[in-house]
Amino acid sequence: MSSADTKAARRAKFEAVFEKIRDELIEHFAAQGMPEEAIEWYRNSLNYNVPGGKLNRGMSVVDTVEILKGEPLNEEEYFKAALLGWCIELLQAYFLVSDDIMDSSITRRGQPCWYRLPEINLIAINDSFMLEGAIYHLLKVHFRSEPYYADLLDLFHETTYQTEMGQLVDLITAPEDKVDLSKFSLERHRLIVIYKTAFYSFYLPVACALLVSKIPYSYTLPSGATVQPFDVSRSILIPLGEYFQIQDDFLDFSGTPEQIGKIGTDIVDNKCSWVVNTAIRLANPEQRKILDENYGRKDAEKEKVVKALFEELKIRDVYAEYEEKVVGELRQKIDEIVEVPGGLKKEVFNSFLGKIYKRSK
Amino acid sequence: MSSADTKAARRAKFEAVFEKIRDELIEHFAAQGMPEEAIEWYRNSLNYNVPGGKLNRGMSVVDTVEILKGEPLNEEEYFKAALLGWCIELLQAYFLVSDDIMDSSITRRGQPCWYRLPEINLIAINDSFMLEGAIYHLLKVHFRSEPYYADLLDLFHETTYQTEMGQLVDLITAPEDKVDLSKFSLERHRLIVIYKTAFYSFYLPVACALLVSKIPYSYTLPSGATVQPFDVSRSILIPLGEYFQIQDDFLDFSGTPEQIGKIGTDIVDNKCSWVVNTAIRLANPEQRKILDENYGRKDAEKEKVVKALFEELKIRDVYAEYEEKVVGELRQKIDEIVEVPGGLKKEVFNSFLGKIYKRSK
Ligand SMILES: [Mg+2]
Ligand SMILES: [Mg+2]
Ligand SMILES: [Mg+2]
Ligand SMILES: [Mg+2]
Ligand SMILES: [Mg+2]
Ligand SMILES: [Mg+2]
Repeated sequence: MSSADTKAARRAKFEAVFEKIRDELIEHFAAQGMPEEAIEWYRNSLNYNVPGGKLNRGMSVVDTVEILKGEPLNEEEYFKAALLGWCIELLQAYFLVSDDIMDSSITRRGQPCWYRLPEINLIAINDSFMLEGAIYHLLKVHFRSEPYYADLLDLFHETTYQTEMGQLVDLITAPEDKVDLSKFSLERHRLIVIYKTAFYSFYLPVACALLVSKIPYSYTLPSGATVQPFDVSRSILIPLGEYFQIQDDFLDFSGTPEQIGKIGTDIVDNKCSWVVNTAIRLANPEQRKILDENYGRKDAEKEKVVKALFEELKIRDVYAEYEEKVVGELRQKIDEIVEVPGGLKKEVFNSFLGKIYKRSK
Repeated sequence: MSSADTKAARRAKFEAVFEKIRDELIEHFAAQGMPEEAIEWYRNSLNYNVPGGKLNRGMSVVDTVEILKGEPLNEEEYFKAALLGWCIELLQAYFLVSDDIMDSSITRRGQPCWYRLPEINLIAINDSFMLEGAIYHLLKVHFRSEPYYADLLDLFHETTYQTEMGQLVDLITAPEDKVDLSKFSLERHRLIVIYKTAFYSFYLPVACALLVSKIPYSYTLPSGATVQPFDVSRSILIPLGEYFQIQDDFLDFSGTPEQIGKIGTDIVDNKCSWVVNTAIRLANPEQRKILDENYGRKDAEKEKVVKALFEELKIRDVYAEYEEKVVGELRQKIDEIVEVPGGLKKEVFNSFLGKIYKRSK
């Protein structure tokens, strides 16, 4: 098989697990005596909101478990890893359905946002709740007897709360309808990105994989040094997630629609993006005035002015420099991992980095 | 102290624990490096949305733990019971903040709904998420080392999911803007009430109290019979919760504003109430037509027509009969409890029943 075929087959295998999970959720819901109309509703919500994304988060649980094991997974191992992956996709669906309401977004993944369907409307709020509720039902059914069950719950809880914290800071820092760049800064951007994105998108999948692979919380190297694999993973994956988001912000500005598959709207949407925060840091008072007057307006002319200023400030060069620096630091951290049987492996992190470094979409 | 003074003192003691919990949540939030503006926001959300209700759910954890112990609680016991009580109040706040958005409600507990404050708006959705997220942070800090920690998490998860299921059925059965009485029935009403209200308002507080009191999952009576105290509690508290809601529905129709402290709006709000469902069951085709044409309209004349029909159908008598029947059944179930040291006590349930039976507000 070609590499593209292998990738498609991996995705198809992962997607097949969703069907099972959805049917299991629906069966349990129906078994409570729920009316047919509600069963239909919940099934539609699951089908509309959970699959259909890039599935990077969910599939990275499977990838990581495979790397840690060092050989192909048996059917049960695959299913458990994939189920955790789908729990992360459910968590993401919970966040996205509600985020779209709060942001008054129109489309998501090439279709209308769930709440924009006229028959759905604000019932989407409760639908998002049920997407989250489904996670804990699934974890209970499939992991209740595992020694790490409570840790798994703690992990999902903590990550969820962190994401909600990041979402709050984002919402009050960059409301779409009120531009106030004095609230922006690279520090604020970093906080938002780490809390709103990095924990659930990067740390959570690997931490799930460590738990289901029963990697111990701490182990000793031949040198006598103690390793705390969850902490080591976090120390790599949080800056990696930050890098991923900074790249995403940069591509929104620099990528052509052909490259990124969409038209960047961060400037008109008043997004607290790495690009504008870097511009704020570099701007002289005149340039700052231009930003204040043109950023975050639904106006193509003003967007052009902002774009020209970004070019003038050489944001592309600043990004290239940032990328080389952060990738160098990440490589060094990964290189410092000492591999022992039953412990962390460099490939877990190299595989993430390989998918991100110099991507253009 | 008079009985009213004792009651006020109990409430004040319980409310004092909220201050501690709120400060603990805020301190943890601040320790993540969150900006002052976000800390202020979260504090306001907690203060606005969590205390200020009747606190029946939360305080019933404390009451139940006291009854089970049979003597006054020491400081630590009180704090743990009260903390669980506040976790239920946080859960309720999560549901109410979002329910008010979905129902386009105007006021709650005598003040504008949180989302109606102009600076809050739909950020209230994420605020409701954080109210739920706070529960699991608190449970982790205070209960992580308890042997029943995973059971406690399972209990909150299951109850939350049940409530969300009930909310979904309610939302699609009785949308405020589209009257369709063919969707209504006493069976549908029962399902909604049990899932949307009874589990979290009645079963959850007692199940929390059983866990923190370390009542075993099953124990043997001198007669040799086995008791499953969680199941026994559920078998009493779910019908009790149903009774409570039916009474609430009845009072909305029958109670004077002086009695119930508000003006009943269930008829104009198209609520799937016990009263209308009973009327549907009893109505002849002509009466049904009157209901179809007048129920759920924002029109005082039509409301009067519906009220007159309810009187004509002798809903007051049907209710009185229902109440005597259900209270008799509940008393019998409670009487069947065989009390042994370290087990269930009748007073747990009698205390709930005493607060509800023949209440007029
Ligand atoms: Mg958004
Ligand atoms: Mg957003
Ligand atoms: Mg972007
Ligand atoms: Mg409501
Ligand atoms: Mg409602
Ligand atoms: Mg009512």
